[in-house]
Amino acid sequence: MDEPLNLVLFSGTDDKLQAAAVLTAGAAALGKPVNIFLQYWALESFRADRIGRDHGLAPEAGPAGRQAVQDLARAGQASWAETLRQAKDLGSVDIQACSLSMDLLHLDDGDLDPLVDGVEGVTAFYINAGEGQIVFI
Amino acid sequence: MDEPLNLVLFSGTDDKLQAAAVLTAGAAALGKPVNIFLQYWALESFRADRIGRDHGLAPEAGPAGRQAVQDLARAGQASWAETLRQAKDLGSVDIQACSLSMDLLHLDDGDLDPLVDGVEGVTAFYINAGEGQIVFI
Amino acid sequence: MDEPLNLVLFSGTDDKLQAAAVLTAGAAALGKPVNIFLQYWALESFRADRIGRDHGLAPEAGPAGRQAVQDLARAGQASWAETLRQAKDLGSVDIQACSLSMDLLHLDDGDLDPLVDGVEGVTAFYINAGEGQIVFI
Repeated sequence: MDEPLNLVLFSGTDDKLQAAAVLTAGAAALGKPVNIFLQYWALESFRADRIGRDHGLAPEAGPAGRQAVQDLARAGQASWAETLRQAKDLGSVDIQACSLSMDLLHLDDGDLDPLVDGVEGVTAFYINAGEGQIVFI
Repeated sequence: MDEPLNLVLFSGTDDKLQAAAVLTAGAAALGKPVNIFLQYWALESFRADRIGRDHGLAPEAGPAGRQAVQDLARAGQASWAETLRQAKDLGSVDIQACSLSMDLLHLDDGDLDPLVDGVEGVTAFYINAGEGQIVFI
Repeated sequence: MDEPLNLVLFSGTDDKLQAAAVLTAGAAALGKPVNIFLQYWALESFRADRIGRDHGLAPEAGPAGRQAVQDLARAGQASWAETLRQAKDLGSVDIQACSLSMDLLHLDDGDLDPLVDGVEGVTAFYINAGEGQIVFI
């Protein structure tokens, strides 16, 4: 029960990040701690200078899917970044950047949005995950 | 042992849905309950008027991959929808649409294939998941 | 603690396989057994005649992402295949091809790189997974 939910975010498109944010907010609302580990293109989407941009959708979304997502955003749906901020207020949500992906993308701590709490390696990720579930998104 | 396997289906391409259906059927055959939660493009593929259509493949499949999938279908391989129907006969498989994705795609219950048992929010998903594993596909 | 980590690899692009290899190596370094089950395009990337090739990246990588990955490879980063070989030396890592995907891709055991330890069905995968976590990549 007290074990955290551990999300490894790899994809940086807005649809997958929204799905991840909803899973995070739902777990936080139920009192479950959530650890998020940002790799590759997900990490890139958390750059301070890019977090508010359009990060595209999965290729399969197609024009109708794109339209549906845009309509919902215009109707006032919270972005994934806003949903994550709310989840952090609600519960225990820790967001860490993968150190290997930081190197890959030539990023420093200062390049990341304040949503990101720090940088860690995969060993630290596993230690913090404990016996909790690991979900790759 | 009695904890369910919980699959969050996000992708709606036929290759990922086939992989999900095989994991579902295998778990059902071993007596493990399976909960499936349909989001985004996976949910769209369960629309009654579209479930039998070609939903494409992951972009990386390429022409040779596409040919291989078509050959197997022509040789009589069960579609992912058929595999899920068989899994429901075999064991305990519950398929729920994510209410947020229903809104996104402007869908009502009546728009979905009878394989889908209902609509629920992420909180209900977590409560039904219990301590069972969560796999995002 | 003694339960294995079970990775179902579906995607065959170099970025996702690198992410999977890092998760594998990290778990192996911590003494956790890892079972890897290769499906679809991931299996194709383990063909003996193709494992050393460029397998592309997720579409969202874009030109800047591709450049970053190439730069790191030129700077001497181990490929995912090398990382998996090292993980096998470090700990208990078992890599099995999904028998259904072998059929799909018309592959025999002899077509696969020696990193792959065998071929099994989904039932065997679940039995070997025991109560350990399942992560789909």
